[in-house]
Amino acid sequence: MTGQITLYSSKTCPWAQRTEITLQESQLPYKRFEIGLKDKPEWYAPKINPASKVPAIAYGGPNVPADQPSASSHKIAESGVIIEFIADLSKDVQLLPKDPIQRAQARFFIQTVAYKVYESYFIPIKSGTDPASLLEAIQVLQDFLPSEGYAIGEWSIADAAVTPFLARAEVAFSNDLGTYEPGRGQAVWAKLEQEPQYERFRKYLADVKGRKSFQNTWDAEHMKNAYIGHFSRTSTA
Amino acid sequence: MTGQITLYSSKTCPWAQRTEITLQESQLPYKRFEIGLKDKPEWYAPKINPASKVPAIAYGGPNVPADQPSASSHKIAESGVIIEFIADLSKDVQLLPKDPIQRAQARFFIQTVAYKVYESYFIPIKSGTDPASLLEAIQVLQDFLPSEGYAIGEWSIADAAVTPFLARAEVAFSNDLGTYEPGRGQAVWAKLEQEPQYERFRKYLADVKGRKSFQNTWDAEHMKNAYIGHFSRTSTA
Ligand SMILES: N[C@@H](CCC(=O)N[C@@H](CS)C(=O)NCC(=O)O)C(=O)O
Ligand SMILES: N[C@@H](CCC(=O)N[C@@H](CS)C(=O)NCC(=O)O)C(=O)O
Repeated sequence: MTGQITLYSSKTCPWAQRTEITLQESQLPYKRFEIGLKDKPEWYAPKINPASKVPAIAYGGPNVPADQPSASSHKIAESGVIIEFIADLSKDVQLLPKDPIQRAQARFFIQTVAYKVYESYFIPIKSGTDPASLLEAIQVLQDFLPSEGYAIGEWSIADAAVTPFLARAEVAFSNDLGTYEPGRGQAVWAKLEQEPQYERFRKYLADVKGRKSFQNTWDAEHMKNAYIGHFSRTSTA
Repeated sequence: MTGQITLYSSKTCPWAQRTEITLQESQLPYKRFEIGLKDKPEWYAPKINPASKVPAIAYGGPNVPADQPSASSHKIAESGVIIEFIADLSKDVQLLPKDPIQRAQARFFIQTVAYKVYESYFIPIKSGTDPASLLEAIQVLQDFLPSEGYAIGEWSIADAAVTPFLARAEVAFSNDLGTYEPGRGQAVWAKLEQEPQYERFRKYLADVKGRKSFQNTWDAEHMKNAYIGHFSRTSTA
């Protein structure tokens, strides 16, 4: 029997959204607790995750309030570990196929393609490098995708692993938010929206964004404001 | 039925040794092909791994010579993906327990603890930083280990993931090989060998090195010569 699941998450964190999407897809019941990253509760690191990061899960043990975690639940951190854990727990919904080859494809996608997408949008936002890196990553993503459907055909945790990055790249670049050269984010996003070579990507993005698991775990306006708050260019006015 | 397995490996590569140890433990039959990293066959990148790295596996398809790979076998790269793949294939030997919590613990160990051990010995060798970073990583490893046995109790792919790093750290530091300040490698390794606080680590190292799967895939003399060849300090004579 499956134990209780309490997820410690944060709305802005893409790693955390991976685990929320996966939980939504699993249809397993869970409690969600928002951790303010600027104002973490003092019990969070000692009782939930010594690395003091979201996401983390408390699994099993008694059904206690999320802010009074039990010492007898299992604590699990790292998004890549948590999404596999949920796939292992999930009985009614297959979040990772049984076939070893497809499982390997999903894991390869998570470890290499999704990670490349992450670096390709976040380093420009944070460190001001050229947003064109996203175009290269999207090409790698497209080359991996089958002609239709999701990363390995049916929806899987591979899609949960990359969707949060794509959604954030869209919010940041289409609004030109970040520390890169002004105009570059919008120019790159316009290419992805218009050029024929990115048609497969546009279909994939629409597919993953169309799922309830994404919509239930995404707040574009909140994300936009967070980027404005964190990565405004120094005003020259 | 399990298909044929051809492993493309390189004796010096720790990521490749992870997969060899796992294959040995699985008792699945496999063919091994040595890739000379300085002199890779021209067919390797186009036909086996576009990233041009070891390890990689060709799985299934016809039983062809390793240097004439078939287009109809599946190609799988990335050590973390391959060891999970072998665990998924393995029927007689359990390389990862069935319990979701233990699986999560193994994966957490692979993604965080093992990776920390890797950086803690290799960056000093390559970039000349202080080898004392290994002591911190070994403390993290020790804190994770149960009071006896392997990373999660029974031997698992978690142990396959870290053993190659420990063996290489020992060869490099105990022989003071690398670009760090002369004497520092030996000083750090002596602490690990002598100080009471590292006793649990010493037991673990002896346990993993004692396994046939390690011994059959390890050549300390070859590794030592490779380090001498790659990372000699500039002679001042
Ligand atoms: N490798 C981790 C990364 C998680 C991570 O970096 N989370 C960030 C927020 S997106 C965090 O909690 N950082 C700590 C902090 O902001 O104090 C995972 O995949 O779960
Ligand atoms: N992330 C990869 C790393 C593999 C890797 O870096 N392999 C090295 C040798 S240790 C390699 O093949 N490098 C390419 C080269 O030397 O040309 C894995 O886990 O398999």
